[in-house]
Amino acid sequence: MGKWPQMLQIREATAADAGLILALVRELAEYEREPEAVKATEQDILRDGFGSRPRFHCVIAEWAGEPAGFALFFYNYSTWEGRAGLYLEDLYVRPAFRKRGIGKALFNHLAQRAVDENLSRLVWQVLDWNQPAIEFYESIGARHASNWMTMRLTGEALEKLARA
Amino acid sequence: MGKWPQMLQIREATAADAGLILALVRELAEYEREPEAVKATEQDILRDGFGSRPRFHCVIAEWAGEPAGFALFFYNYSTWEGRAGLYLEDLYVRPAFRKRGIGKALFNHLAQRAVDENLSRLVWQVLDWNQPAIEFYESIGARHASNWMTMRLTGEALEKLARA
Repeated sequence: MGKWPQMLQIREATAADAGLILALVRELAEYEREPEAVKATEQDILRDGFGSRPRFHCVIAEWAGEPAGFALFFYNYSTWEGRAGLYLEDLYVRPAFRKRGIGKALFNHLAQRAVDENLSRLVWQVLDWNQPAIEFYESIGARHASNWMTMRLTGEALEKLARA
Repeated sequence: MGKWPQMLQIREATAADAGLILALVRELAEYEREPEAVKATEQDILRDGFGSRPRFHCVIAEWAGEPAGFALFFYNYSTWEGRAGLYLEDLYVRPAFRKRGIGKALFNHLAQRAVDENLSRLVWQVLDWNQPAIEFYESIGARHASNWMTMRLTGEALEKLARA
């Protein structure tokens, strides 16, 4: 435990945290200037995180017992490496708890997990206007995969293609 | 079966396809100008695709019984949607089998799967110089998530952060 401040604990989320996770997801969406984007319900989080077929994993950062942030991730796969990796969908520290090394501790936890499980990499995305985050990510050794464009097929277009 | 040419069949890959999948992964890496990038072995593919804890799923496209291409994917998760989605890691049609609608049929298969499983989206990445692919993806309704940058932490940097 010596590596983090003693006030800080990072623990696995449980089903009892579904409401807290949704609240943190909503706070993060507000920070990302998309407050209306969160359609997920507490039932969705319960089913997909803690049901019979988990679709994500989540850890909660607590500061003196108070929920201060979270990281939510799933396993991706690299056919070049022939190994799974971690895809970090959400990482967030509440404003009142910033500047205490909590974000770094969450990344440290995930990196430790990746090394322990023989995974090839940690991957995530960042909004291109979020310069403080980009600088932090570069400071911990992350690199921008700049020649890859992300494509998405959703909603009507997805349904149309399914019927094609 | 009426939606695709009769010569074409799309089937689930099995453990017996591990060697074929690796060959297709290598051909795709050559096309992506990264022939040395594939470190995966047939054992990796067997373990991660067809072992006790599958890390990916794969379908094979056959033309008149010949392996013509493949799609390899895993489940991602959207905390905004509260639903899983499909992340398409690799999609490839061998040069000799192009211009027959096989790529479109693979996408159609994945979209159908996404709709059947109530998934929120199909996501993948494309190299920014691959204009024919980008145009094809746009023609089937995909959109470029242009304000999101992909960050990666691998190798030495990942191990260093794990020890931090």
